[in-house]
Amino acid sequence: MAIIVQKYGGSSVADAARIREVARKVVACKAEGNGVVVVVSAMGKTTNELIALAREFSQTPPRRELDMLLTAGERITSALLSIAIAELGSEAVSLTGSQCGILTNDRHSDARIIEVRPIRVEDELAAGRIVIVAGFQGMSYKREITTLGRGGSDTTAVALAAALSAERCEIYSDVDGVYSADPREVKAARHLPEISYQEMQEMAAAGAKVLNAQAVEFAKRAGIAIYARASFAPGRETVVRRDAPAEPHGVAAVVTERGVAWVRFMGRAVTEGCLDILEAAERTITPVKELRFQWPGAEVSWARGSFVVSTSLIPDWERARAAFLEAGRGELEIVEGLGAVSLIGVGINRDTRNVQKAVRILRELNAPIFSLSTSGFRISLVTDGAHLEAAVREMHAAFVENGVAPPSFTDL
Amino acid sequence: MAIIVQKYGGSSVADAARIREVARKVVACKAEGNGVVVVVSAMGKTTNELIALAREFSQTPPRRELDMLLTAGERITSALLSIAIAELGSEAVSLTGSQCGILTNDRHSDARIIEVRPIRVEDELAAGRIVIVAGFQGMSYKREITTLGRGGSDTTAVALAAALSAERCEIYSDVDGVYSADPREVKAARHLPEISYQEMQEMAAAGAKVLNAQAVEFAKRAGIAIYARASFAPGRETVVRRDAPAEPHGVAAVVTERGVAWVRFMGRAVTEGCLDILEAAERTITPVKELRFQWPGAEVSWARGSFVVSTSLIPDWERARAAFLEAGRGELEIVEGLGAVSLIGVGINRDTRNVQKAVRILRELNAPIFSLSTSGFRISLVTDGAHLEAAVREMHAAFVENGVAPPSFTDL
Repeated sequence: MAIIVQKYGGSSVADAARIREVARKVVACKAEGNGVVVVVSAMGKTTNELIALAREFSQTPPRRELDMLLTAGERITSALLSIAIAELGSEAVSLTGSQCGILTNDRHSDARIIEVRPIRVEDELAAGRIVIVAGFQGMSYKREITTLGRGGSDTTAVALAAALSAERCEIYSDVDGVYSADPREVKAARHLPEISYQEMQEMAAAGAKVLNAQAVEFAKRAGIAIYARASFAPGRETVVRRDAPAEPHGVAAVVTERGVAWVRFMGRAVTEGCLDILEAAERTITPVKELRFQWPGAEVSWARGSFVVSTSLIPDWERARAAFLEAGRGELEIVEGLGAVSLIGVGINRDTRNVQKAVRILRELNAPIFSLSTSGFRISLVTDGAHLEAAVREMHAAFVENGVAPPSFTDL
Repeated sequence: MAIIVQKYGGSSVADAARIREVARKVVACKAEGNGVVVVVSAMGKTTNELIALAREFSQTPPRRELDMLLTAGERITSALLSIAIAELGSEAVSLTGSQCGILTNDRHSDARIIEVRPIRVEDELAAGRIVIVAGFQGMSYKREITTLGRGGSDTTAVALAAALSAERCEIYSDVDGVYSADPREVKAARHLPEISYQEMQEMAAAGAKVLNAQAVEFAKRAGIAIYARASFAPGRETVVRRDAPAEPHGVAAVVTERGVAWVRFMGRAVTEGCLDILEAAERTITPVKELRFQWPGAEVSWARGSFVVSTSLIPDWERARAAFLEAGRGELEIVEGLGAVSLIGVGINRDTRNVQKAVRILRELNAPIFSLSTSGFRISLVTDGAHLEAAVREMHAAFVENGVAPPSFTDL
């Protein structure tokens, strides 16, 4: 029996009618002879509503308590979907992250999955039941309820797919896959029928919200294909699979991220205060991955350290900002309202031609460059918010529309 | 360190302002040097809203799934109260029923607590933290999430108080304790400063909603006093404690219950169909305790069996009703819209004088008697809904206002 893991995001289970529709899709998948595991998010805006409730009491609610609070959302959806499936005459059982054997570290609100022991899931599948899993949550080795951070239900789905040796993992949302740029920002954006794990990871790290980066990491390690599809509009999909070919190809996508801040150390802060500041970052931002350390901004003297922060990923940026400034003791500058534009593509950093071209495009737009960083398959530039839209349009035109198209994997 | 267990019902935590008020009360109790464990219900009407959500999908949602759904309500309250306490500068930790070691049987939606292993609670108390417990829930030996039935948060509180050898258990609600009758029905109802465990149990079994019967059973076995108080109107309270003295005393309270149905076996059903019908009851009503078996109604020939059902306790009475009628094969009669009036008091059944007096009162009102039953400290009569109000008023006047007052335990 092939095992299929499906994941439905918040908008796909936003109300009773949609949950009923999802129930029908799930039952149809089971009827095809598959073992079906369904991971669900909280309904619609439930998570935001619960966070708002918590904020009625505190601007800095303890993360452990926030996890206890938020996990209720996914449990409600899982029980309701299970009831809807039972009503269609199929047997379904809802399970919490803990019941699925999703073991995490104890970093509340951004836990990482350490191990998946899906014994209960396997038992239920063997008994012919459809398994509905509350996404986004796990249990730490301290037996505490944890959450997996933004997009964590994707991670639940892929981690379970890997642990169950599933045939594939289908991620349903309100978009039909991955595009070469956000279609709302770039009209010429192309739908990508396929993309490699690495490129998808870089896109997620660069701020694309389609798939969670840790989820893609799990899929890559287990060699499981992810199918990103629209829940209620069958048709196109993006398949995320197989490591990129060694041959370099062009830019696959241009990704933007807003709400970026640039933090610069000055004077003694560079040598003496730096550790204090990093400690403040650790204390206030906690998931340090959110503090994406880049090398010093291109326009900044090498003698002066700087880093870039994705403020939208930080639960309480105002507090983090205050902690930074206090730790910096007057020798720290924070520039807010910036944006990052990132180019993603296998081998685009084999030489510096793409970096040079990207910098030239921003210079021609008179867009300031606060930071430039490259990694495996990514070039990221931070500019100000005012120039961001033009920057992404020009980059997409120069690199995707008139660039070298990435080869389709099926052509290889 | 004395341990105090407090329980706050749904109306006491209905909104942010009330939760903040509860947080202050809890912190004050801790400041007096106590170890404090707080059991909470779901906020206001949350449980009913979740049930309504489930009913959008099914009139008969699987009980296991309903438990998964409903337990989310108490978890949300526990996390929010914990956040509110943290904001006041005290350390609090919210725990699920499972984390508190509340182990139950696997009868979903009406599980019984088998054992309480409050190791985690003890550890948190020893660490100086206030422990906030999601009420109404436990974990079965199958590692399934279960709920304890109506009023189950009371049971959570008392069972924890017993397991922790707490000094006392305080149950906060919107009423300031127990009355000799429902003050909305009987103007002359008296507040009872004290009541014995047994009387309280009989009252709960007779339909009084002040305290859950299983909760009182736990308190009795562990010898823990229950203080029933109003959350936001300090003043009067009812202390439930100490087994009643062996000496009989008068009627302590008159309790009414609406939504009672009377099921009568006819013809062959009495001998042949009876087991089928009981099987149907078992299947549809599941918690068989809800099918309170009384002896045959006083007005019915002894040759014919009958029993009384509290329809309001049955999640789906329409379905149960249909199952009964089917199993009865035309030899079953169901009379709905009835009500029970019960007299509660230690020793009131030492002889039959009280029963005779009660029957006489109903006869004088021309109220039909469908069933008469007695147990330890209780006399229950089932009459029709139209006569119920007059019946309770007359009973209260005859037995409580003009009867022998129960002795105060402090006088003994």
